[in-house]
Amino acid sequence: MQQVTINEVGLRDGLQMHRSIVPVEDKLRLAQAFVDAGLRAVEATSFVSPKAVPQMADAAELVAGLPDVESVDYSVLVPNQKGLTRALAAGARAVNLVLSATDTMNEKNIGLSLSETRATCVATIQEARANGVEANAYIAVAFDCPYEGRVEPPVVAELTNEMVEAGAGRVIIADTIGAADPVKVRSLFEILLRRHSPDIFACHYHDTRAFALCNVWESLQAGVMRFDSSVGGLGGCPFSPGASGNLATEDLVLFLHQCGYETGVSLDGVLECVKLAREVSGRELGGRSMAYLTAKRERENGQH
Amino acid sequence: MQQVTINEVGLRDGLQMHRSIVPVEDKLRLAQAFVDAGLRAVEATSFVSPKAVPQMADAAELVAGLPDVESVDYSVLVPNQKGLTRALAAGARAVNLVLSATDTMNEKNIGLSLSETRATCVATIQEARANGVEANAYIAVAFDCPYEGRVEPPVVAELTNEMVEAGAGRVIIADTIGAADPVKVRSLFEILLRRHSPDIFACHYHDTRAFALCNVWESLQAGVMRFDSSVGGLGGCPFSPGASGNLATEDLVLFLHQCGYETGVSLDGVLECVKLAREVSGRELGGRSMAYLTAKRERENGQH
Repeated sequence: MQQVTINEVGLRDGLQMHRSIVPVEDKLRLAQAFVDAGLRAVEATSFVSPKAVPQMADAAELVAGLPDVESVDYSVLVPNQKGLTRALAAGARAVNLVLSATDTMNEKNIGLSLSETRATCVATIQEARANGVEANAYIAVAFDCPYEGRVEPPVVAELTNEMVEAGAGRVIIADTIGAADPVKVRSLFEILLRRHSPDIFACHYHDTRAFALCNVWESLQAGVMRFDSSVGGLGGCPFSPGASGNLATEDLVLFLHQCGYETGVSLDGVLECVKLAREVSGRELGGRSMAYLTAKRERENGQH
Repeated sequence: MQQVTINEVGLRDGLQMHRSIVPVEDKLRLAQAFVDAGLRAVEATSFVSPKAVPQMADAAELVAGLPDVESVDYSVLVPNQKGLTRALAAGARAVNLVLSATDTMNEKNIGLSLSETRATCVATIQEARANGVEANAYIAVAFDCPYEGRVEPPVVAELTNEMVEAGAGRVIIADTIGAADPVKVRSLFEILLRRHSPDIFACHYHDTRAFALCNVWESLQAGVMRFDSSVGGLGGCPFSPGASGNLATEDLVLFLHQCGYETGVSLDGVLECVKLAREVSGRELGGRSMAYLTAKRERENGQH
């Protein structure tokens, strides 16, 4: 069976906009639950300015407390060299940079132009690599930008080339606002794969329009074998709780397993993560398949 | 742009299991809303035994009262020649037969073996055609049967061949329990298209596991250009209201339009249908994209 890696981003993308501060102990309980569920990759936190994102002020403490499991590929987000310095000091093994594909998005997000952000990402990736740390780049708003509209594939291809040349080991194509569809996914990868192997890509889809699994499927057709998701869909929910945030890990696992891919993840374990994430976040979480999964679990437990 | 036909099945598949009897006047208001929304195909009712399904006892009255619009392709379900006789008397233009792909499903559903059901369908299709009426065949549980498990593609292919030879104009591949995935869809159509044009097929997906749009996408790749759906996902909801019934028409329309297909359907019109269907059924309806669509509509109305 073909192996697909799921990168659990609930602790970072899932929590970064969360209103109340989740105690580091609770975050570490979640991290342990991820490991117990068999998740092989976890984006654990972000070394952004604690003033800008107080939720992530505990980044160093969190990294120090992560379950010490060799088989889990932990990464942390860093916005720039300052963040990298903190991440390195905390002992991070891999760092992820974020480069939005449009001027306006970078300006709104971090107050830099696109070219300034590119330079920041290149310098940070190079410094990470010089320190023996893996560096990856998110290309955010890789399909549509909420300010500038459609982002054309050649723009994403150029940014990809630049990040790879700088030393990024992986490029994560991020549909930040959940606007992608399989037609856009296909046309983007047609261009990206002219120059790169699908192995260097991961995809990060939001399920705003309920197209995320379609986009995963089309990405699999392009040969992409790594996807971000968050348990229960934890994360940016611009419209309604639990309905439009990150692609939910349980939906992704159910889908991949049914389609014949191996992930190493236990669906029951993910449901335990969702339960814990609900408790920790105080939010009604759950992917699109949650009603089905819950009924299935009850049926199976009833039969035993 | 390529045209896709959406066959609205809310009045039949959507209502057949509905607890309280919906008055025929309300059903006709829904039919008018479907026409107003631009839906080009409507499965209006079922000429089953009124004793077995009291909800459909008004079938003749409903057919007589349907909006007289030349451009709408109305059809009705008939279980056998007795139902056909009633449908013909009511003036139905097209009839749909249901053939489940397994013995047990036919027995549980209508008390006949698979071979008896095949014979019934063949005879009814032939009689419909002899009366100048279009006849189509649903192949139910075409992917998985709740009693017998996986249904292999050659079984569906054989049933398809038999129905087409009997005179069925169209074969509707129905994932009755929402167990299909794009891998199964692909392998089924690989076999079906060896002998038939994709034009003769339609697909009927249930969204139980949230894979319905993936299955639509994969069916489109096979060349299928006609899909069943129901407004708000109205219909068999084995697990939770609004979450696991028929693929919702609003999800399908949003998806098809974004992927560049033309349907003739107005998304705003469909949202009006959902509102009316909620009122008429007393149920909390809405597809997976409802939160997004509602927020989008509010934003657009606010901007005007």
